[in-house]
This record gives sequence, C-alpha cells and structure tokens, in this order.
Amino acid sequence: MTPTIGVFDSGFGGLTVLRALIERLPRAHFAFLGDTARLPYGSKSRRTIARYAAESAQFLVREQGAEFLVIACNTASALALDAIQDAVPVPVLGVIEPGAIAARQASATGDVLVIATEATVQSHAYAAACRAQGLRAIEKACPLLVPLVEEGWTDHPVTAEVIDIYLGELRAEAAAQGLKPDMLVLGCTHYPLLRPLIERAVRPGVKVIDSAESAAQAAVELCNGRLGGRLGERVAPAAIGATAETEVRCFATDSVEKFERLGSRFLGRPVGKVELIDLGG
Amino acid sequence: MTPTIGVFDSGFGGLTVLRALIERLPRAHFAFLGDTARLPYGSKSRRTIARYAAESAQFLVREQGAEFLVIACNTASALALDAIQDAVPVPVLGVIEPGAIAARQASATGDVLVIATEATVQSHAYAAACRAQGLRAIEKACPLLVPLVEEGWTDHPVTAEVIDIYLGELRAEAAAQGLKPDMLVLGCTHYPLLRPLIERAVRPGVKVIDSAESAAQAAVELCNGRLGGRLGERVAPAAIGATAETEVRCFATDSVEKFERLGSRFLGRPVGKVELIDLGG
Repeated sequence: MTPTIGVFDSGFGGLTVLRALIERLPRAHFAFLGDTARLPYGSKSRRTIARYAAESAQFLVREQGAEFLVIACNTASALALDAIQDAVPVPVLGVIEPGAIAARQASATGDVLVIATEATVQSHAYAAACRAQGLRAIEKACPLLVPLVEEGWTDHPVTAEVIDIYLGELRAEAAAQGLKPDMLVLGCTHYPLLRPLIERAVRPGVKVIDSAESAAQAAVELCNGRLGGRLGERVAPAAIGATAETEVRCFATDSVEKFERLGSRFLGRPVGKVELIDLGG
Repeated sequence: MTPTIGVFDSGFGGLTVLRALIERLPRAHFAFLGDTARLPYGSKSRRTIARYAAESAQFLVREQGAEFLVIACNTASALALDAIQDAVPVPVLGVIEPGAIAARQASATGDVLVIATEATVQSHAYAAACRAQGLRAIEKACPLLVPLVEEGWTDHPVTAEVIDIYLGELRAEAAAQGLKPDMLVLGCTHYPLLRPLIERAVRPGVKVIDSAESAAQAAVELCNGRLGGRLGERVAPAAIGATAETEVRCFATDSVEKFERLGSRFLGRPVGKVELIDLGG
C-alpha cells in the first residue's frame, strides 16, 4: 500500500513544502490542508494557533488516513508542534528544526540570519533551534513579504526595495551584536517565491537556506526509515510532470477559489480541484 | 440614561470610525469589538463573514446592551449587513452607503473612484451604493495598503510608491471607460491613516472622501433621531481629550496586546485596557 503523507498549513504557502516533497517522494499520496478560513496564524495567539492546528492535524489523520504529518507552516511549527504531536498518533515533522540543521551544515561562522512572520519571530523558535545546533541567530519579522507575494509582485521593484530595507535593518542588528552571518534562513513558506530577489539582495558569501527544502529532505529521511522505504528515491525536478503516480488531494476551510487561483504559483503546477471542508471554526 | 453604541470591526481599523463617532457624540457610551481571532475578513467568503459578523453583533447587543450598531468594517458592511440586521433587534448602520452619499453630495461629474480590500471590491457593494446615488464608480482592490499601515509605514516612500501604482492603474481604468472622476472614496477603515499620502497622490480637483467620517456623521443623525437627542452636539476635535464623560470599552477575540499597541494610532488616543472575549471561533 502507498502511504499517505499529510501536509498542513494555515494557508497555501505550504504548497512550496508540498512541491519539495513531491520532487523527493513521487510515489507517495499526499493530502494537503490549508486552514484558509482562519488564516493568518501569524497574527494570532499561541493558544488559538494550537487549537486550530490540532483540529487540522486530526482531519488529515482521521479523515484522510495520513500516516505522517509535515507541518508546512512556520507559525504552527513554532507555536503548536507539541500540541499537534499530542493531538495525533502519527509522527509529526515541523519546518523549523530542519532549517536550523541545514544552516548548521552549511555555516562556517556559526552566525545565522532568519526572516519570518511576526508570530514566528516572537516565538523565537528559530533562535532556539539554532542555539540547539550551536549557532547564533538573529531573527527579523518581515510582515510585508507575504502580502507582496500574494499580490503577485514577486519580481517587482517595490518588493526588491522592501527586501533591501528589511535585510539592511537585519544586517545592522547583526553587526551591532558582533555577529558575522553567512546564512539567511527563509522562515516562511511564502518566501521561496521571493528567492531570486532575496539572492540578489544578500551580501556576497551569504547563502540562502529555504526551510521548505530542508523540511522536505528531512521528511524523506524520516519517511523512508519509518515507512519501510516504500516511497522511492528522489527524482529529478524535470521528471515531476511525468509522475502520474503522485496523488495529491487539496483541502481548504474557505476561499477555495483563491487557493486554486494562487496555489499553482507555489506548487509549481496546477493544484486542481480544492475540496472545501468545515472544521467548525 | 446614556445610550450605548456598539461599534464592530474584524480588526482594529474600525477605531478610525469610533474616533469620528466620539468627536461627534461625546456623551455616548461606546463598546467596540474587534474580531481579531478571525481577521482578516477581507480574504474570506461571504458565508463565513456573515456568520462571524452576526456572532460579533450579538455580543455587542446582548452582552454590552448596545442600542445601536455601527459596522465599522467595509468588508462586513459589504457582505454581511443583511445577516447582521437579521441577527439583532437594534438599528444597524454600515459604512458603505454613507460613503456613497457623501460622494454624491460633493461630486460634480458623477464619477467616483473607490479603493478598498479585495473582498469589498469583489462584492461590488460600493459600485451598487454609488449607482443607487446616481453615480458611476470604479473600484480597485489595494491589498498592500493594510499591511503597510500595520507595519507603521504610513509616511514612507515605499507606501507612497505603492499608492502611486494603485491610483495610476485605477485612473487608467477610469479613462478607458470614459469616466472623469472627481472623488476618491477610501473604502477601508485602515486608509484614513494614509490620507496625507493619498491626498498628495490624487490629481488636482479630486476630493478624498473618508467613509469613516461619513459613517460617523450618518450615525449622529440616526442616533439623535432614534435615541431622542440624548447624545449631544458635535464637539470640536480639540475638545476630545477633555470629554471625561465619554466611556469606551474595547473588546477583542485575540491578540489584545497588538490591539493595545497599534490601536491608539487609529483612535488618536490611548485605547486603554482591551478585554479578551471568546466567541467560540
């Protein structure tokens, strides 16, 4: 039997994580849930986020038979990973620890910059995960980047200017603390769409780490171990379109039209029909 | 007995409407509810918005004794005014019709530009309200403006540039349809904080109409009629700080800290303690 992997986000930004998973696990089945009726989690309290995320995880496990969950949402990973693990009987992987591990593997100076939503930054989850890897991290909230991506301005001079302002402030803060960062972690699943602009804005020698990619790689390792190697080898991205085996079902709690319209940018292929569900919120 | 006026918004942008109400009705009591656990309404469906707004209105009437409701949220006014009127036994005033009436009173050409959130624009509620006043309206969604206000960039070159881009696109659309607009209606309660930048960006001869101001003026007329003239005359804005009589209680469904921190910019004075309530969402 082909295993089902559940992927959860507050919206559809987590489709960048799903995209990275499909590239690596083309023979798995995927159920993706975007809790779009209650987004953005980024501006809500820990208590509220934990309740919403636990309900969403239970839907993927109980209703969709997910044997493994990837929390493709930095805010939920930061604030609700424990609550989700308590709520479901399957392994649960967040996006934050894999990002920190990837930074540790690539960093020479041990100093890391992190950009994320306000709630993720306020949780200091990346700073804690980096510290656990022996890294020093400076985090910065960049609340305009998600709306700029959703406006479709992913290659727009205004977006480049906003990125310059945010990164300039972050560099100044790092310098003030005597850090010499050589890594920039993208701590939000919307940010991979801005990667070309961000690559242009970072100083030479600073490497951009996409925690969506890092989490997908960690999921492969965990899945292949836990699920008995049923999921297959990584395929080259060029082969994605040809993996007719990959089954992806997408669910949302609201605004399926917007999900269908914008989601393909994140997934890198059409998301198809999105099914509306009601989690009672 | 002093009447209580309930003011409702999905977030705290509606504090610009409350501010305009306090200026005009200094002897009233006010109960303001921001449904911050479930914002932004702007990206949600009509069905969901109607349910959230009705629950919020019932809280203000049943728990706070509001005798009159002002829906200080363009999205809820556009999509849920009927649902709210059905849900509570008191008069309910939205922000859209007053904005359209103010535009009609001031316009010479009969052509009007409207900027608002995506959900408000998709509802075409302003176009319909303007048509009912004999005006032709062109609406444009400006989804970056709310995040720019919440980032505090209300006097920032990036914000000025974004406004220029949006208004340029809107003017081009109006010209393509042969319209000669002389009014620009601010169809979102966050936009009054951008009024100085917007005033600088409009063409000479175009007047900016703030629907928060228009709604407050309409509320005064309705209240003084319906509530027997118990609310008093308009006071000059300079006297606001001195109206010790004005009682304002603020409630939110989440993130009271953010509400307290950002709310004063919208209200024009400290919002004080914000009480957390649970509407079960």
